[in-house]
Amino acid sequence: MWNELNEYLEKYNALTQAIKLLAWDIETEAPRDSIDNTSKTLGLLSSEAYETLINPEVEHLLEVIKPAELSAREAAIFHELQKQYKKLKVIPKQEYQAFTELTTKAQHVWAEARQKNDFAMFAPYLEEIVATHKRFIGYLGYTDHPYNTLLDDYEEGMTVEVLDAFFAEVKAAIVPLVETAVKGNEQLDDSFIFVAYDVDKQRQFSRFIAEYLGFDYARGVIKESAHPFTEHMHNKDVRITSAYLANNIASGILSTIHETGHALYELGVADTWTGTLVGEGTSMAMHESQSRFYENVIGRSLVFWQPLYPRLQEMFPEQLAQVSVEDFWRAINKVQPSLIRTEADEVTYPLHIMVRYEIEKGLFDGSIAVNDLPQVWREKMLEYVGVAPSNDAEGVLQDIHWSGGSFGYFPSYALGSAYAAQLTKALDKVLDREDDVAQGTFKAINAYLTEHIYQYGKTKTAKELLEAMCGEAFNPQYYTEYLQAKIADVYGK
Amino acid sequence: MWNELNEYLEKYNALTQAIKLLAWDIETEAPRDSIDNTSKTLGLLSSEAYETLINPEVEHLLEVIKPAELSAREAAIFHELQKQYKKLKVIPKQEYQAFTELTTKAQHVWAEARQKNDFAMFAPYLEEIVATHKRFIGYLGYTDHPYNTLLDDYEEGMTVEVLDAFFAEVKAAIVPLVETAVKGNEQLDDSFIFVAYDVDKQRQFSRFIAEYLGFDYARGVIKESAHPFTEHMHNKDVRITSAYLANNIASGILSTIHETGHALYELGVADTWTGTLVGEGTSMAMHESQSRFYENVIGRSLVFWQPLYPRLQEMFPEQLAQVSVEDFWRAINKVQPSLIRTEADEVTYPLHIMVRYEIEKGLFDGSIAVNDLPQVWREKMLEYVGVAPSNDAEGVLQDIHWSGGSFGYFPSYALGSAYAAQLTKALDKVLDREDDVAQGTFKAINAYLTEHIYQYGKTKTAKELLEAMCGEAFNPQYYTEYLQAKIADVYGK
Repeated sequence: MWNELNEYLEKYNALTQAIKLLAWDIETEAPRDSIDNTSKTLGLLSSEAYETLINPEVEHLLEVIKPAELSAREAAIFHELQKQYKKLKVIPKQEYQAFTELTTKAQHVWAEARQKNDFAMFAPYLEEIVATHKRFIGYLGYTDHPYNTLLDDYEEGMTVEVLDAFFAEVKAAIVPLVETAVKGNEQLDDSFIFVAYDVDKQRQFSRFIAEYLGFDYARGVIKESAHPFTEHMHNKDVRITSAYLANNIASGILSTIHETGHALYELGVADTWTGTLVGEGTSMAMHESQSRFYENVIGRSLVFWQPLYPRLQEMFPEQLAQVSVEDFWRAINKVQPSLIRTEADEVTYPLHIMVRYEIEKGLFDGSIAVNDLPQVWREKMLEYVGVAPSNDAEGVLQDIHWSGGSFGYFPSYALGSAYAAQLTKALDKVLDREDDVAQGTFKAINAYLTEHIYQYGKTKTAKELLEAMCGEAFNPQYYTEYLQAKIADVYGK
Repeated sequence: MWNELNEYLEKYNALTQAIKLLAWDIETEAPRDSIDNTSKTLGLLSSEAYETLINPEVEHLLEVIKPAELSAREAAIFHELQKQYKKLKVIPKQEYQAFTELTTKAQHVWAEARQKNDFAMFAPYLEEIVATHKRFIGYLGYTDHPYNTLLDDYEEGMTVEVLDAFFAEVKAAIVPLVETAVKGNEQLDDSFIFVAYDVDKQRQFSRFIAEYLGFDYARGVIKESAHPFTEHMHNKDVRITSAYLANNIASGILSTIHETGHALYELGVADTWTGTLVGEGTSMAMHESQSRFYENVIGRSLVFWQPLYPRLQEMFPEQLAQVSVEDFWRAINKVQPSLIRTEADEVTYPLHIMVRYEIEKGLFDGSIAVNDLPQVWREKMLEYVGVAPSNDAEGVLQDIHWSGGSFGYFPSYALGSAYAAQLTKALDKVLDREDDVAQGTFKAINAYLTEHIYQYGKTKTAKELLEAMCGEAFNPQYYTEYLQAKIADVYGK
């Protein structure tokens, strides 16, 4: 009977691989005029993938197969299928498809609304997306807070209770750090970051730095897209993009390092899980912990740049010959309140997330109405980040997530950084991380992360992995301590 | 009922698009270690595509739908489906799948056999492929000659009778041309073609020349692969590859022009047919007629190079400043008997095809046995081309086609050149082609070909298109005359 079920699973995985390749292709290479037709193709294949898993035969197999009679490998896949199945089958197929169509349309409207700075244009779609989610939450049920059901999609078991405490602690710690930084910025020159840098040389340096960190070109591809992202077909085909700016040397390099972190996670999944339901990173936040670990803990550290920086100087002598590695390191760690999340520094970033978290929570407990979002956005930005947008394009319309139906996703970004800080502590107990980084060797670090996180794919939850590795539950204190130490290092004590 | 059928067709087309993108990706970008898994995915999606068309519901709909009640557009698609259905449904699904598995395996074995120069290793697979085809021909039936059934897959209505006459005429005309050329080669210097040419500059020139001929980057992509090819998802997404050699300026340019010809055909299909069963070129030979028209009739003509050559000289002054456009043109038209089909010149090329044609015909009428192929190959090469390989890697093992199960395909290559010559005659009656080419304008030529060929996709057969355009049936005489004129031009009368 497993074989019978496995046929459905293999077909599902084949369709998923095709969908991922089409999506990757749209962002990186597809000619402009092909998009309409490819969107249609993606819609059809997504329906097909859905029907491959959600159908009476699979439902029957899920009922009659006894996990105890399966091998450990089969049981792990079976367990994951059960989890996904429970969520999907309570939603009527028609409503699921209508939601897919709604969000496809909403993304187009959002893009236009952002361009025209016209929130009213997007509002009715957002209303309908929120209403649909509320209906889905009705089908799925919830514990304590309706938003918990949405959080669970991205971070199994995550709750408003945990996040409220997390963000309160983060906010309390960060506000004084930002004040210190803003004062210190008078002595921090980062102007050399924003001069002309040849894009082709940046591209070369990116390819080099990804490999330096352990990216394997026999199992991966690096390309470019408007917004950097990572796509994986399975652990033997992991692709990242970067984006290079002609007037900013830091943006492309740090994007590459960030995506390399995501890629190392997927590349580290054990071969047993190649092309199966569990053959990928376990959660959004755990994924983000890896990208942020490599980007911030490693990529924004002085020891990382000490051996590398001469190479960068050699590539860009005009721009960097007179700039010391310490000044370069300080510049890429500059903290400065700003309006756009994706451009935010490491310290103010979680405050941007907090704004979104509170809005999402409020939308689902009914305390915030869609029409009030522009105003709420401005108020919260001013309160937490200290700046407020003069228009909605730079405010509530800046992110694509809500138009795509993704609610409960944003907190993962901040959690990822916090997980990264906590697991760095665990890692530092057994490895001399700084010494390895100073020597440009990432084998031991990568092996540690593979052993404790990557290899398992989705067979363990983020909570299980974190607790096993750190010997305690999620604890945001490591994160605030990490940020405090960073600010002390960069801005002086 | 059409809507019901159309759902199957749309799903089939979505799967086909995904399969094509996966195939394109494997050749151009996929990381090395991903291939095994992607091959499996391709197998699963191909089965799925097959089952989407070949099933009792579609069979029922084909029986009950009355073409007379369909729109002209629907009727054209319906007609194509009927044609494809008839061929596929007589072959039992298990045998079809077994054949797919056999040829997948055989391609791997062939690659290894070629590398090891070991025909005996490949022979059993080839035996089984031929045996399977014979069984399929048994299911499908045939008229006059069993090989006709295979020919029909690539060129509807093509027969051994037509091809025997065609190749006899070609051979009679070409043998003296080759003699003339070989004598003339003493005065033909083409050594400057084979010096070092910067690959990145070649790439730039290729991108330019494709656009110069009418390739539209809003609907197309140019990339690189080991062997140049064209892939189309539909008429709004047409992709070509070229391959650049560091020591050969002609190879990459002419490959690009060749593939651009294929691409222009697909780009010219009318939007009515986007993403449907008829939304692509009508036959292999008609497709090849377009690539050869652009590559040989246009791309190897002196008028084509007169305006372009200064640009190439400017790009490669060291290599070409002292070479006149006439000498360059002569060099890229040099005729020289050689062992490898894909490297053959325009004149000896059809003789390479003739060798394969006679072997295929012999395999299916029983006059040639698989085990005798190396010997037969050598004899026929010596007889027609005038050279014989000393090993099978350069002989009977050189082409991938048979390992992939493609029999009946090779003749299209030669027919394509002959169609190209015939339609050039028709085109020249209404357009001043040489004047357009000399001025670097391809609008009128492309519009003519779109009007008479491209727009129709598969809704008309090659035979119908050729006869409508030329006012007469296929006539190989235009081809032999074209080659005679070419040799007279290049080598003097």
